[in-house]
Amino acid sequence: MLKVGIIGVGTVGASVANILRDNKDIIKARAGVEIEPVLGVVSNLSKDRDVTIKLTDNADEVLNDESIDIVVELMGGIEKPYEIVKKALANGKAVVTANKALLAYHRYDLEKLAGDIPFEYEAAVAGGIPIINALRDGLSANNIKSIRGIMNGTCNYMLTKMINEGVDYDTILKESQELGYAEADPTFDVGGFDAAHKLLILGSIAYDVDAKPEDILIEGIQDISPEDIDFANEFNYTIKLLTIAKKIGKKVELRVHPAFISNDEMIAKVDGVMNGVSVIGDKVGETMYYGPGAGGDATASAVIANIIDIARRGKGAPMLGFEFDHSENLSIMPKDEIETKYYLRLRVEDKAGVLAKIATILGTKNISIEKMIQKPLNKTCAHIMLSTHTSVEKDIMDALNAIVDAGVVTADPVMIRIED
Amino acid sequence: MLKVGIIGVGTVGASVANILRDNKDIIKARAGVEIEPVLGVVSNLSKDRDVTIKLTDNADEVLNDESIDIVVELMGGIEKPYEIVKKALANGKAVVTANKALLAYHRYDLEKLAGDIPFEYEAAVAGGIPIINALRDGLSANNIKSIRGIMNGTCNYMLTKMINEGVDYDTILKESQELGYAEADPTFDVGGFDAAHKLLILGSIAYDVDAKPEDILIEGIQDISPEDIDFANEFNYTIKLLTIAKKIGKKVELRVHPAFISNDEMIAKVDGVMNGVSVIGDKVGETMYYGPGAGGDATASAVIANIIDIARRGKGAPMLGFEFDHSENLSIMPKDEIETKYYLRLRVEDKAGVLAKIATILGTKNISIEKMIQKPLNKTCAHIMLSTHTSVEKDIMDALNAIVDAGVVTADPVMIRIED
Repeated sequence: MLKVGIIGVGTVGASVANILRDNKDIIKARAGVEIEPVLGVVSNLSKDRDVTIKLTDNADEVLNDESIDIVVELMGGIEKPYEIVKKALANGKAVVTANKALLAYHRYDLEKLAGDIPFEYEAAVAGGIPIINALRDGLSANNIKSIRGIMNGTCNYMLTKMINEGVDYDTILKESQELGYAEADPTFDVGGFDAAHKLLILGSIAYDVDAKPEDILIEGIQDISPEDIDFANEFNYTIKLLTIAKKIGKKVELRVHPAFISNDEMIAKVDGVMNGVSVIGDKVGETMYYGPGAGGDATASAVIANIIDIARRGKGAPMLGFEFDHSENLSIMPKDEIETKYYLRLRVEDKAGVLAKIATILGTKNISIEKMIQKPLNKTCAHIMLSTHTSVEKDIMDALNAIVDAGVVTADPVMIRIED
Repeated sequence: MLKVGIIGVGTVGASVANILRDNKDIIKARAGVEIEPVLGVVSNLSKDRDVTIKLTDNADEVLNDESIDIVVELMGGIEKPYEIVKKALANGKAVVTANKALLAYHRYDLEKLAGDIPFEYEAAVAGGIPIINALRDGLSANNIKSIRGIMNGTCNYMLTKMINEGVDYDTILKESQELGYAEADPTFDVGGFDAAHKLLILGSIAYDVDAKPEDILIEGIQDISPEDIDFANEFNYTIKLLTIAKKIGKKVELRVHPAFISNDEMIAKVDGVMNGVSVIGDKVGETMYYGPGAGGDATASAVIANIIDIARRGKGAPMLGFEFDHSENLSIMPKDEIETKYYLRLRVEDKAGVLAKIATILGTKNISIEKMIQKPLNKTCAHIMLSTHTSVEKDIMDALNAIVDAGVVTADPVMIRIED
């Protein structure tokens, strides 16, 4: 069994504790050992928190507990967590953090201090998207030509609204603050600083360059106006707050700023609060990673992936993902039982009564029509194309057979499933 | 040093050998050891191949060479590579394969045979996209609710052409065959079987279910007609060959078939020969992975990621991606030296000579205008919005200062970079 202490039990910390409890079985099957959160550290014990783990307000209870194997740091800030994490490493504990600011300033110090002790931080960049994993492992054969990321959900939400709905900056900022997407002082997000912290981490993995936020170009989205959006639309661009890491000769560009990008690019399609990161490798070409960049459960998903990775150290991930037979004993669903929506194309004789016959057959099989188009095909034939509400595969197959048997179609019916 | 033998030196095998040579330094810095391809096995030694490694036509020279640590199997087929791989494992060699058919039929046998010996297969699913990595490691905290993949580039290319250009199935199949995107006998691709092999692998990692291709629903794209595409367009759908793994209660749906999906979904935007896989986890929500599903270098990128992963066994990936100081000694590019395209918005007095002054300033700074729009703002002012060809950041900054100094603008100029 691996024991975990969580320092900082806010939204993400609570999610980490609760997911380790709720998904305990599958996590054990994947990690090969039980992983148990044993103690959480909070600054204010009297505040109500939605967790079942034991809480303390003394971080030393985690740091000095010899039975705790992994310290999860979710405090926020820079120097205070740096001291905590140093102490955890000095006590031989593996560390997992979601703290991008800590890494933006201290990642190379921490790398030295950690040495052979696992130190992981998947959640620090792009929340639930396993981009550290992709860049550090999945793309390791490549020289990285460039990374372009949309890694601040607040900015992307605001820009998407400005572009799609013509809302102006001040209005959407106020709305984002009311929705909790933007802080009362939004500078850290809208000024590009949050995205810059993440960029510096990716820049290190791609290029082994040590830079601090003050070393790089950082601009925010505050000056973007409807006129800029009109110009972008006019020439098939969209506007995103982009983080860019790019190698040119022996120099690395690291910059965060709003940018016009072509609507034809995959990353231009990353809208709303979602994040996306496009990486171009010299061998693989472009790969892109998309998902939620924030949120308690999404961020905790990345934190726990790191914990499981640490549990697997020494042996690697199990070949097919599970160390033990996974106890659920799932079976393959028989084809007949599939439930989805269906599209049907029927070639019929263009005469009275045909549609009625078809509708009757569908009705007797409990298939209800959602949308329908009938189009003449030639003088004697027509196409009926229709979509259904959710139906059972067997009913659809039976209905199609009955339609064929009824002699109302002049070609084999075509069926395509609809995945909504 | 780790020594690698490559069994099957076709397009992918040649790429593996050549990338291990070309990217040798960065691979060593990331893996912590040198990785050297020492011997390739081919069936026909007289055929010309674009590789510099030694070749043999006798697989036993790799399998019985005690100095070879890792066997890369890229032969294709099922039973013959199965015998080869069994022998490699019996001889204690780690195995990396890109062979999806082998895994579709023998993955659970191979898992047992491998035991503690590394057996990796990232390239078998979605080519260069590190989706095995994401699913097995990055999302390991989650119960997987569903996986939906576009994992056959041939089908996606054909469907994209049919949808965007109104080409019919037979015409686009012929064109794809001429381009080398489809085989002379295209059944394996257009019939959905290739995608099904990949789906079975993902199904195992997500759900630990053992199924063979013959156990699941597989349909191809052969019956899709322009009428179906018209219907899809009419109701905001696109048509994709979709691989679906989904858990419903204690049953797992595994199916491959053309499907209507909403244009609003991220995966609907995966066009042409590209692949995309959307995974919904119970905690992280939706993440999506996009990239090239085929091609020698892209597939080799995944094969080599596995080799590096094997080299890192026992210690895990280095914290910031590099085991050694990476020798390139890259520096951060000074902001002034950045080169890109720029968009400028200038609020000017609406009177004669203003545009001439601005154009002159830009010209003296070597900035050439690509596109321009001028719009009246009120009775006395106008907005000039323009984009430039590639320029140097310092020139842009100097030009903007000069424009302000010239007194022709009535508000601070706005500059947004264009990333093409």
